[in-house]
Amino acid sequence: MSQTMNKKFTSHFRIYYEDTDAGGVVYYANYLKFAERARTEILRESEINQSELTKDLGIFLVVSDFAGSLKKPARLDDMIKIESEVLKMGGASFSMCQKIFCASELLAEIEVTIVCVGGDMKPSRLPESVKKALS
Amino acid sequence: MSQTMNKKFTSHFRIYYEDTDAGGVVYYANYLKFAERARTEILRESEINQSELTKDLGIFLVVSDFAGSLKKPARLDDMIKIESEVLKMGGASFSMCQKIFCASELLAEIEVTIVCVGGDMKPSRLPESVKKALS
Amino acid sequence: MSQTMNKKFTSHFRIYYEDTDAGGVVYYANYLKFAERARTEILRESEINQSELTKDLGIFLVVSDFAGSLKKPARLDDMIKIESEVLKMGGASFSMCQKIFCASELLAEIEVTIVCVGGDMKPSRLPESVKKALS
Amino acid sequence: MSQTMNKKFTSHFRIYYEDTDAGGVVYYANYLKFAERARTEILRESEINQSELTKDLGIFLVVSDFAGSLKKPARLDDMIKIESEVLKMGGASFSMCQKIFCASELLAEIEVTIVCVGGDMKPSRLPESVKKALS
Repeated sequence: MSQTMNKKFTSHFRIYYEDTDAGGVVYYANYLKFAERARTEILRESEINQSELTKDLGIFLVVSDFAGSLKKPARLDDMIKIESEVLKMGGASFSMCQKIFCASELLAEIEVTIVCVGGDMKPSRLPESVKKALS
Repeated sequence: MSQTMNKKFTSHFRIYYEDTDAGGVVYYANYLKFAERARTEILRESEINQSELTKDLGIFLVVSDFAGSLKKPARLDDMIKIESEVLKMGGASFSMCQKIFCASELLAEIEVTIVCVGGDMKPSRLPESVKKALS
Repeated sequence: MSQTMNKKFTSHFRIYYEDTDAGGVVYYANYLKFAERARTEILRESEINQSELTKDLGIFLVVSDFAGSLKKPARLDDMIKIESEVLKMGGASFSMCQKIFCASELLAEIEVTIVCVGGDMKPSRLPESVKKALS
Repeated sequence: MSQTMNKKFTSHFRIYYEDTDAGGVVYYANYLKFAERARTEILRESEINQSELTKDLGIFLVVSDFAGSLKKPARLDDMIKIESEVLKMGGASFSMCQKIFCASELLAEIEVTIVCVGGDMKPSRLPESVKKALS
């Protein structure tokens, strides 16, 4: 059921004090926050809100696996750009590659696998609306 | 129904990178996080878990008002001490003063008012166990 | 040196999973994050970046006092609006009122006092550019 | 220069509201925060503070790569245990495996690579004290 997909989604986020740490750069865990904001906005572009997926269908999109490679840090006041692309689409899960840039420079590369689960945290079919939004 | 109470509760927390920002000190909003950890530990000392208050009684303890005065910043690797004291105890709410120290130096002073609410976010009587834990 | 000022600045921020907690609503300390993002964007509208204030002038804008009144919680996927207004402008500090709305409903009201400090954390004159940006 | 090392370090952290999200469980990026707290405490056991590494030697320990596999979520009030082990020790970097448990149940497994860098963000030799603390 996996498919090749090439559509790239682009999101932009500003770096604020809250995102940085005493090393003077963005705290490493926060790249995962930006990546999730980007995924959320990709769905919202297709009018899918995760709060409604939970309320209407009783499902959650949860991260089961993630990996990140941090090449250069983002800093206070930077405007970062995230390019997101689906790598693999399955029946109850999908994986994405998300590249984070500042200007044209690649700062970080993140891969995540997202699983659709029910309230019992067991895998559940991805809604067609989500699949369509990502492809 | 308000009472005078003098019992002081003491909690300790370490400052990690996640707590700091590019200014080299603790990010200002995070003092509210430490204050809440302290309140949670005060209840836990009396074997009250907030997750059980919600599961068993359908109530939440939510902050309705807060104020903070920041005198000196905490820094990476500091061990902070929080001294918490109930200022006022009511039927469905209470307020606390929480002083944050590093060594013997006062860094910050926080006041919060906590309201007990039901799932509908309407005020609900504070359980006796919570009142007793705080007095 | 205090002045009356009425200019209102408006900012918008989306609520993501990272902003919420297990109570199902925005974690209380995070309203201070949104308030700071709004203040940062107000300065940026006048082409003032805080990272440049530090690099070029050796100063930081730090919060010395804050207070918040939380009336209704923001929730996942909400788009909040912040209306910010200077209450008082001094030589080395200023205070602001920041109201947070969802749609037309007032969720929270925050007041902060900001002090301009040098690297030694001692008060320093507010740059004219900052005063002008806020008035 | 890589070595086999088997020493296991154990750390414990409590889950607070700040760590959770509206899904009712710990927000996925926060496992990286706990992992870092654990690494920091491992160094502190050998009396190494990262703030002193920076002040005294001008170096930072930064994460270059991370990966996580999330099997079961941690929840509010859980006490998690982290077992950390060095996988590989190099001249300017090392990697660790960090397993997160609640009671005896494995919740998450994280791998990180840490690089020692100077103020210019270029790799710098790991201090012997750090190598010794980890082995």
